[in-house]
Amino acid sequence: MRGALTAFFAILLGGVVAIAYAQDIKPDRAIKYRQGALTTMSWQFGMLGAMAKGERPYNKEEAIRRATSVAELSKLPWEGFGPGTDQGAPTKAKPEVWKEPAKFKDLQEKLMVETAKLETVAKTGDEAAFKAQVGATGKACGNCHDDFRAK
Amino acid sequence: MRGALTAFFAILLGGVVAIAYAQDIKPDRAIKYRQGALTTMSWQFGMLGAMAKGERPYNKEEAIRRATSVAELSKLPWEGFGPGTDQGAPTKAKPEVWKEPAKFKDLQEKLMVETAKLETVAKTGDEAAFKAQVGATGKACGNCHDDFRAK
Repeated sequence: MRGALTAFFAILLGGVVAIAYAQDIKPDRAIKYRQGALTTMSWQFGMLGAMAKGERPYNKEEAIRRATSVAELSKLPWEGFGPGTDQGAPTKAKPEVWKEPAKFKDLQEKLMVETAKLETVAKTGDEAAFKAQVGATGKACGNCHDDFRAK
Repeated sequence: MRGALTAFFAILLGGVVAIAYAQDIKPDRAIKYRQGALTTMSWQFGMLGAMAKGERPYNKEEAIRRATSVAELSKLPWEGFGPGTDQGAPTKAKPEVWKEPAKFKDLQEKLMVETAKLETVAKTGDEAAFKAQVGATGKACGNCHDDFRAK
């Protein structure tokens, strides 16, 4: 039993050391990184939102370019939510990020599915379908904000 | 002469209106956007820098993934340096950004050339060539910071 426990803690410690190595970065840098990635995505997606609402003229090439950026950007913020990054700089991330990691990951993946669709639809040049997919993508952003970002 | 001047000002005004429309966003948002994009690029590139220096194990797949992100990210910050965004939020951007736009643009393009090479070299899996190209890319970052970013 003690052997099993020792092995268990050795594995646990190994994991912690691996995480520490992988991050090896102060929490404030990780917080600023994830905020930077989300701000960048929000700007790019905001331009597409304005297009979908008719506040900005629809332009296929611009839609493709920005949708491609949004799809790439949607993969990035998540590594900035590592263990111990719940504090260290001002953050709107709720404790739920670290308490409900499976749910948080599920919503990240749903966002990535929608942003990939957005890129695909932008490339077809079907303006109505594109605008609808902007709405679906915005919903995926909001679904995560509802539970994991403080107001 | 007066006709030519009127035409000139009409074009100038048209340009200003077009810019106002294209931006239609408060300077502080543009400043936060460009800082977010640069912070995101810096994080991704920093991981590759750590790999090049041996502080992080070389991993071909991770190198490709991050180099691809860096190449995409290097296209993004520049639209955040529009007219009137020299102030509105704390910024390290020097007045030279708006005084020497041709030089600033040239350095952006040089960076994009180097990040595209970085992505290409990462995909070959040639570790030594990859590490050399991380150095060349870092130099392109620094060249721009030297003249356009305050210490």
